[in-house]
Amino acid sequence: MNKIDTDHIKTGKLPSNKSLYIIKIGGNVIDNSENLYHFLKDFEALDGLKILVHGGGKVATQMAEDLGIESKMVDGRRITDIETLRVVTMVYGGLINKNIVAQLQRFGNNAIGLTGADGNFIKAVKRPVKTIDYGFVGDIVKDSINPENISRLMEAGFTPVFCAITHDGEGQLLNTNADTIASALAVSLSGLYETTLIYCFEKKGVLKDINDEESLIREINPQHYEELKVERIIHSGMLPKLDNAFTAIACGVKAVIIGKSDDLGQLKDNKPFGTRLTKSA
Amino acid sequence: MNKIDTDHIKTGKLPSNKSLYIIKIGGNVIDNSENLYHFLKDFEALDGLKILVHGGGKVATQMAEDLGIESKMVDGRRITDIETLRVVTMVYGGLINKNIVAQLQRFGNNAIGLTGADGNFIKAVKRPVKTIDYGFVGDIVKDSINPENISRLMEAGFTPVFCAITHDGEGQLLNTNADTIASALAVSLSGLYETTLIYCFEKKGVLKDINDEESLIREINPQHYEELKVERIIHSGMLPKLDNAFTAIACGVKAVIIGKSDDLGQLKDNKPFGTRLTKSA
Repeated sequence: MNKIDTDHIKTGKLPSNKSLYIIKIGGNVIDNSENLYHFLKDFEALDGLKILVHGGGKVATQMAEDLGIESKMVDGRRITDIETLRVVTMVYGGLINKNIVAQLQRFGNNAIGLTGADGNFIKAVKRPVKTIDYGFVGDIVKDSINPENISRLMEAGFTPVFCAITHDGEGQLLNTNADTIASALAVSLSGLYETTLIYCFEKKGVLKDINDEESLIREINPQHYEELKVERIIHSGMLPKLDNAFTAIACGVKAVIIGKSDDLGQLKDNKPFGTRLTKSA
Repeated sequence: MNKIDTDHIKTGKLPSNKSLYIIKIGGNVIDNSENLYHFLKDFEALDGLKILVHGGGKVATQMAEDLGIESKMVDGRRITDIETLRVVTMVYGGLINKNIVAQLQRFGNNAIGLTGADGNFIKAVKRPVKTIDYGFVGDIVKDSINPENISRLMEAGFTPVFCAITHDGEGQLLNTNADTIASALAVSLSGLYETTLIYCFEKKGVLKDINDEESLIREINPQHYEELKVERIIHSGMLPKLDNAFTAIACGVKAVIIGKSDDLGQLKDNKPFGTRLTKSA
């Protein structure tokens, strides 16, 4: 697959050859105030342009419970009805997002908290009803991301902090997976910046032995990945994550790193951090 | 009082002589989806730069009630304890703000939803405890507003939509009166733009007879205001509103308009709208 088409980017003042980090954090960082504090300090210290993407953690589930809103699951997947959408809009877009922004400002980072509706940055499509009606869930499609608007915001000196909410462009907010948002942002912005996508999760990276943090694989390229799959060293839960990562790389993202939020500071010090997925060896 | 000092604005690329509308809406617009729809359509249609400031309406009170959080009042004023702060951050910063943004995007306005923490736009000071501890309430002080950052955001093509949340710069979000935010924004930005501040409320404007919407006073200057006070045509609840408005005008704001949100469209058509407070006759 070739680099994404950036013909639609019309401004004459676009940057080039600048590096950009897009970093996604999930519940294991958000739900633990100490983890979050250290992560945000390390995030602030990273040089260059950066974007933070966060999911929801346990707060939204707890808030729904406190409000007596029942979680509706179909085939093990959560349904976003109108009540649940209200809760995630409040919790992701308000409570979590704005507290992250206030912390980043404290550390001297000029953060600005966003949903995909803000600046029309991420326009998703409400998931079509087939056998299951997922409710107000937004799927990312081609041209969902508006890289020109995001670039303008960053070039004006702001650090975007995205939560997992998008919109349909017709006034409707939608709930969208944070991993997907991070990856779509990385692919879209790789036409403008040398983009590295980082997924922070609970392990040090891709492990040869899931029970041994010392068995970290430092680097994987597509050929190596095929071998690891054949040897069944990588399997089950890691497969979709890595498949998506290599798709992003094939679409122009320079590298995808999967690692532990505690270790992010190593990136600043040019030390190896997590598992680095790249195009070639 | 002279025009505010703008020496602190360091960028060489600041605009000049551009007009800016700052419009504040409250509960009577926010709590009524039809009013809100029409207001946002009229807001979008206004030419030039504009900023929207919104309060909370009844949603936050209802949400606090649903969550079993008791409203603590002292001397008739609400106390923002930590639980209440969580609710207003969710409701103002998430639910209301992001739905307004999604609507404005639908109408083609490139809105971006903000608290004062975002972009470090509004840094307030936690109200000192004297006889009453108001909790997490932020007071606007000198240099609270960062006009340079706000200007950069607008010049990058975005329309700021502020809710009534600020921060202290040390990681703490604070609850701040939306009227005060609107007026402080207007004074601060009047050093960069020809700024008109508009308060939308439930009446057509300042009325000679509060029960007669036809008795609207079209224009008031400071001299006229003194006469109206002596004649006791303006009294009670309107006095602090108008005092604040004339202070804003003395600090550089071109005009303050007090009017009904339904009538905002008249501004676009160059028809008289509400009561216009100005420096001179």
